[in-house]
Amino acid sequence: PEGFTDLDRKAIDTARVLAMDAVQKVGNGHPGTAMSLAPLAYLLFQKWIKHDPSEPDWVARDRFVLSPGHTALTLYTQLYFSGYGLELDDLKALRTWGSKTPGHPEVGHTTGVETTTGPLGQGVGNAVGMAMAARRERGIWDPTSGPDEPSLFDHTIWAIASDGDLQEGISGEASSLAGTQQLGNLVVVYDDNKISIEDDTTIAFTEDVAARYEAYGWHVQHVADSEDLASLDAALAAAKAETSRPSLIVSRSIIGWPSPNKQNTGAVHGSALGDDEVAATKEVLGFDPAQTFQVADDVIAHTRQVVERGRAARAEWQPSFDAWRSANPDQAELFDRMRTRTLPEGWADALPTFDADPKGMATRKASGAVLAAIYPELPELWGGSADLAESNNTAVEGEPSFLPPSRQTKTWSGGPFGRTLHFGIREHAMGSIMNGIALHGGTRVYGGTFLTFSDYMRPAVRLAALMQLPVTYVWTHDSIGLGEDGPTHQPIEHLAALRAIIGLDVVRPADANETAVAWRTILEHNDRPAGIILSRQNLPVLDRSEFGSAEGTAKGAYVLAEASGGTPEVILMSTGSEVQIAVAAREQLEAAGTPTRVVSIPCQEWFAEQGPAYRDEVLPPTVKARVSIEAAVAMGWREFVGDAGRVVGLDHYGASASFQKLYDEFGLTAEAVVAAARESI
Amino acid sequence: PEGFTDLDRKAIDTARVLAMDAVQKVGNGHPGTAMSLAPLAYLLFQKWIKHDPSEPDWVARDRFVLSPGHTALTLYTQLYFSGYGLELDDLKALRTWGSKTPGHPEVGHTTGVETTTGPLGQGVGNAVGMAMAARRERGIWDPTSGPDEPSLFDHTIWAIASDGDLQEGISGEASSLAGTQQLGNLVVVYDDNKISIEDDTTIAFTEDVAARYEAYGWHVQHVADSEDLASLDAALAAAKAETSRPSLIVSRSIIGWPSPNKQNTGAVHGSALGDDEVAATKEVLGFDPAQTFQVADDVIAHTRQVVERGRAARAEWQPSFDAWRSANPDQAELFDRMRTRTLPEGWADALPTFDADPKGMATRKASGAVLAAIYPELPELWGGSADLAESNNTAVEGEPSFLPPSRQTKTWSGGPFGRTLHFGIREHAMGSIMNGIALHGGTRVYGGTFLTFSDYMRPAVRLAALMQLPVTYVWTHDSIGLGEDGPTHQPIEHLAALRAIIGLDVVRPADANETAVAWRTILEHNDRPAGIILSRQNLPVLDRSEFGSAEGTAKGAYVLAEASGGTPEVILMSTGSEVQIAVAAREQLEAAGTPTRVVSIPCQEWFAEQGPAYRDEVLPPTVKARVSIEAAVAMGWREFVGDAGRVVGLDHYGASASFQKLYDEFGLTAEAVVAAARESI
Repeated sequence: PEGFTDLDRKAIDTARVLAMDAVQKVGNGHPGTAMSLAPLAYLLFQKWIKHDPSEPDWVARDRFVLSPGHTALTLYTQLYFSGYGLELDDLKALRTWGSKTPGHPEVGHTTGVETTTGPLGQGVGNAVGMAMAARRERGIWDPTSGPDEPSLFDHTIWAIASDGDLQEGISGEASSLAGTQQLGNLVVVYDDNKISIEDDTTIAFTEDVAARYEAYGWHVQHVADSEDLASLDAALAAAKAETSRPSLIVSRSIIGWPSPNKQNTGAVHGSALGDDEVAATKEVLGFDPAQTFQVADDVIAHTRQVVERGRAARAEWQPSFDAWRSANPDQAELFDRMRTRTLPEGWADALPTFDADPKGMATRKASGAVLAAIYPELPELWGGSADLAESNNTAVEGEPSFLPPSRQTKTWSGGPFGRTLHFGIREHAMGSIMNGIALHGGTRVYGGTFLTFSDYMRPAVRLAALMQLPVTYVWTHDSIGLGEDGPTHQPIEHLAALRAIIGLDVVRPADANETAVAWRTILEHNDRPAGIILSRQNLPVLDRSEFGSAEGTAKGAYVLAEASGGTPEVILMSTGSEVQIAVAAREQLEAAGTPTRVVSIPCQEWFAEQGPAYRDEVLPPTVKARVSIEAAVAMGWREFVGDAGRVVGLDHYGASASFQKLYDEFGLTAEAVVAAARESI
Repeated sequence: PEGFTDLDRKAIDTARVLAMDAVQKVGNGHPGTAMSLAPLAYLLFQKWIKHDPSEPDWVARDRFVLSPGHTALTLYTQLYFSGYGLELDDLKALRTWGSKTPGHPEVGHTTGVETTTGPLGQGVGNAVGMAMAARRERGIWDPTSGPDEPSLFDHTIWAIASDGDLQEGISGEASSLAGTQQLGNLVVVYDDNKISIEDDTTIAFTEDVAARYEAYGWHVQHVADSEDLASLDAALAAAKAETSRPSLIVSRSIIGWPSPNKQNTGAVHGSALGDDEVAATKEVLGFDPAQTFQVADDVIAHTRQVVERGRAARAEWQPSFDAWRSANPDQAELFDRMRTRTLPEGWADALPTFDADPKGMATRKASGAVLAAIYPELPELWGGSADLAESNNTAVEGEPSFLPPSRQTKTWSGGPFGRTLHFGIREHAMGSIMNGIALHGGTRVYGGTFLTFSDYMRPAVRLAALMQLPVTYVWTHDSIGLGEDGPTHQPIEHLAALRAIIGLDVVRPADANETAVAWRTILEHNDRPAGIILSRQNLPVLDRSEFGSAEGTAKGAYVLAEASGGTPEVILMSTGSEVQIAVAAREQLEAAGTPTRVVSIPCQEWFAEQGPAYRDEVLPPTVKARVSIEAAVAMGWREFVGDAGRVVGLDHYGASASFQKLYDEFGLTAEAVVAAARESI
C-alpha cells in the first residue's frame, strides 16, 4: 500500500512473534490465526479504520469486530500497536487472572474492544447490528442529510470472520438480512484458511462461500494471498467504496504462516507452537530466537503514530460536529441523552393505565399499547420481531419500517432511517443484531418472538447479559396458554432456563397494568437485558381499587391481595397468567376461613435486589405455608415456598387444544391451588 | 403425470377444501399453505414416496419430512387419503384435545408422521440426518453391496421446506453439510411462496435461494408454477435420479390459492379464511359451498389405492430381504437388534474400569476410553463432534470417518459408510441431524461440543426430549474448570437450564469410573436423550475400596463416603469436578469431629426415578444440615438441601485464568464448604 515501508512489514512480523510468544508464555491459546491475520489486522488498524485511540468512544469512529474471538491476540496486538493503553506487559499477561488480555476479547474490560466475541458467528451478527444502528442513529440525529448524501456521523463497520463463523447458521441469517438491508457501510473479511480444529475443513465445509454471499446480494471480492498487502489494500478500498451493498472479501490465508512445520495444520489453531517451532519461525522472520516479546523501538514508535493521525482526523471532524450541534439543538439534546442512555424527564407520564376489566386483555396487546404510547416520547426506542409483528404486538402503527426503499411492500412502508425492524424468521440473528445495535450506541432496541423460540436466540441472550446490554426481548405466547399450536410451541421449561441466566431480568406481568410498569422499569435500567414475557390469551385487568397497586411490579414482587385480618395463614404466589388462578384460589380459601395472601412476582431478579426488609414484608418468614403456581416446571420455586410449601406447575410437555382445556386437564386450577394450600398449612 | 386423471385433480382440490374446512371448524390454524401445497403433497404420496400404509414401519420405506409443521394439514390430508388410519372425523377434530391431528405433526402420536416439526428449520436438519442414517445403516447391514451399487435398503428422503425454514440458520448449516456429504438420497422441495406472517417476504428475505443451494453443492431445479403437475413430476423424477448430490426443487406457489380474496397474503397463512371466503373458494373449485368436509366416494376410493400399491411394492421387495437374511445371518441378527434398540448380551463387559489415581484423568478422556472399548461391541454406536473431536474425545482411533471418498483428508480417512461423524462448527444442525438419525432407525448416535455451546443446539435438544429419542450429547469443558478461555466459554447456568428440560437426562460424572457407568446407563435407556457432562481438567480417580462403588451412578445418586459412625450430622452433595471438593471438606469436618456424609449426584433425573426408600436412604430426611457444591448457579439445589441447607455455587460469570485460580478466587473450596456446613448444622 502507498506509503508502507519495510518498517510496516517488520511491525506485521512483530505481531506474529508476539502472538507466538504470548501463547508460549501462558502455555495455551490460539497463535495460528493471529499469525496469519497479522497483515490484514495491521492494515485495518493502521490505515483503514477511522479511529482515535485517545478518544475510544468517538461517535463517528469506525467499528471493528473480531468475530473469531479466539484469535484475541490479533486484536490485542493491534490495540498495543495503536496506543489504546495496552502495553507489552499486558500481552505477557495473556489469559491470566485480572489481565486486560483475557482468552477472548471482552467489551468494557479492554479499551478498544467493541464487542465480546468467542461463541462463533456472533460477531457477524453484531457487525450487521452495528451497521443497522449506524444508519438509524444517523437518521435520528441528522435527518436533514438525505439517505444518499454524506453525513458527519457516517462510518464503516469492519469485521473479520473465520471458517467457523461462516459455518454457524447465525452468520448466514444475519448476512442474508444484511443483503436485504443493503448495508453499504459493512465490510467483512473472511479469513479463508481452510483449517479448523479438526484440521482440513474439507471434511465438513466444502461450499462456495463467495457464491453464497453473492446469493445474499453482497459485493464479493477475492484476495488470493493474505500476505499480499497491495491486493488486500485494494480490496478494502473497493469494499469501502461500495456503499449500496455489504462487502465480503474472501482472503485466502495460511494459518500459522510462516511456521516451518506447523503452518496449515489444525495443531497451530489452538495450541502453543512449542519452543523449538517458535524459534524456527522467528528465524524465518529474521527475529532473534533467543529473545521473547521482542519489539524494536522504531516499530512501536511507528505504529503508535495512529494516535496522532487519529487525533488529527477527529480534530478535522470536530468543526462539522460543532456546526451540527448549533444548527440542530433538539437533535443535539437527544444526542447527549442517548450517549448516556438517559431517559427524558417525564417520559413515563405517557404510559397508559388500563381500566379494570374482568374479560381482560392479553398482556401482549397491552405491551403493544404501551409501545404506541411511549414511541413519541422516546425516539431512541425501536424494534421489531422475527416475522411475528402482529402476534408479538411489536410494530407501532404508522411508524416507518427500517427498510431500503426498494424493499417496501404493500404492508410495510418505510425507508432507510425507519423504526420498525423486520428480522425475518431468524431469532438467533435477531438476538445478535440487537447486541450489535446496543453496542453501537444509545438506541434502545427490542425484538420479539414466541417464548418457546427464545431457545433459538439463547446464545445471543447470554452474551447480552454478559455484556450488560440494555436490549429487551418481547417473548409472547408464554405458556400452554397459547393453546392449539401444541407442545412444540408451548414453553414449559423456558422461564426457569431464562431465570438461570445471570444478569437477565425475566419479567412476566400478570395483567395490562403490570405490563405498563414492567416496560417502564425495564427501560429505566440501562445496564442489563430484560425479557418481557407476555400472554397470548386475555388476562383479567385487575381492579386496583381492590388489589395492590401495579406499581409493586417495579419491586419484582408485591402483595396483590392481603389476607383478611392482615395476617396470612398461607401465601399464594404466582406470575403472569396464573395470578388470576391464585386470586380465585384465595377467594375459596378465604370463604372457608383461611386468611390468604396473594403475592404477584413479576420479576424474581428485581425482587432479589430489594432489601431484606421489603422481601420479608412481602413473604414473611414466619408464614411457612406457601404455594406457588406457574404453568411451567417447578425448578426455582422451592427457594420461595420452602420445605413446607407446595409448587403447582407442570412436569410434562403440553398438548394441542384450547388453553382452557389444557389448564383444566393439567390441573392448573384454583381447586388444585386450594388443595396444595391445605397440604402446606 | 402419466396416468393422472381428472379424479386426481379432484382429489387435490378436495385436500384444499378439507384444509379450509378443518381450520374453519376449530377456528384457528394454517390453511393457506395446505391449500397451495396440495398438488405437491398429493403427487409425493400417490406416486413418489415408496411406502406401505399397512406397514408404516417398513425399513425400506422412503421418509417424508414436513419441515413447516404448521401446515400439518398438508400431511394429515395425505395420510387420510393414503389410508394410514386417519379418517374424516380426525380431520374434523383438528387441534383439539386428544385428537390424532394436533396443531403440529407429532411422531409417535399419529401413524405415518416421521418427525415432530413446527420449530422452523428443524425438519431440514432431520431430513439430512435421515439421509445420513440411511447410508450408514445400509453400510452396516449390507456391506457387500458397494457404495455405487443398489441395495435393498436404499430409499429416498423427501422433504418440504418453507420460506421460514430456509431463513433459519439451522437449515443452512445442515444443507451445507448435506452438500459436503453428497447426499444423493435427499430431495427437498422449497415451497417458494414469498409470503410469511409479516406478508411479502421482500422486507426480510430477498436472497437467491437457488444460488445459495448451488453454492452448497446441491442439484437445483425450478418449477415455475406449483399447480403444474407435469413440471413438478418431472422435477421430482430428475431429483430422484440425481444420486450424487442432494436435490433442491424451488417450486413457486401462491399461498392460499385459489382463494379469490386471500390468496398471496399473510392473512391466509395463520388464520381461518372465514365462512364467506371458504364458500367463495369452494365455488372456484367446483365444490358445494353449503357442504363441509365433502369427500366424494370415488375420490377416497381412488386415493386409498396407495395401500394396495404399497403392499405390492413391499411384497415385491420381500424376497430380496428374505434372501439377504439367509445369506447374512450376522447382519440379520444385528438388524433385528437395532430394530428394537436392544443391546447385545454381555456388551457391558467391555467397559473399562479405571485404577485409583489421585492425579487423575479428565472425564472427557475417560469417556473417550469408554467409547473405544465398546465400539467393537456396538456397531450401532457412532458419533462425532462439532469440530472438536480431540477436545471432546469423540473420535475413536482407527475408525473410518463417515465421508464421501473425495472428502477424505490427511487427518481423516473413511468412506460413505464410515463411523466418525464430522458435523463442522454447526452445533444446531448437529442436534437436528442427530434427531433425524435416531428417527430413521436403530443406530445410537452421539455428538459433542463444549457445554457452553449446548445453547446453540438447545431447540434440537428440546425436540429430542419431546420425541423421546435416544441420542447422547457429549458436552465437555463443563465449568469454569475449562480455565483460560474465559467467560464466553465457561458454562455457569447450563446445568440448571438443561435439567429444566423435561425428558432429558443430565449426567455429570465425578470421575473416570462414574463416567463408565454413566455411559452404560445412558445406552441402556432407549427412550430418551441424555447429555453426558465432562470435565476438561483432570479429576482424581477415586479409590473405590475406600469410597462407595461407582455402580451407584446408575441410580443417579449414592453415598460416596459415609459419615464416621454411620450417622451423618451433615450431608455434602455434589456433582462432577466438585465432588473432590466435597470429599476434601468431609476430611476437614471429620477431623473436627463432625460425622459427614458425601453424596455424589451424577444424575438428578435417574435419582428421581428411584423409589422413596432409596432416596431417603441416600438423603435421610432427618438430616437437615446439608450443603451442595457445584460450579454453577444455585438454581435447583434448594430442592435437595432444604430450608436449613446451604448452596455453594456461582452467581456471576467466570473469568479468564487457570482453573485452580478461578476455583480459589470464586470460593469453590473445601474451606467454603466446611463453613457452609457449620452454618447449616
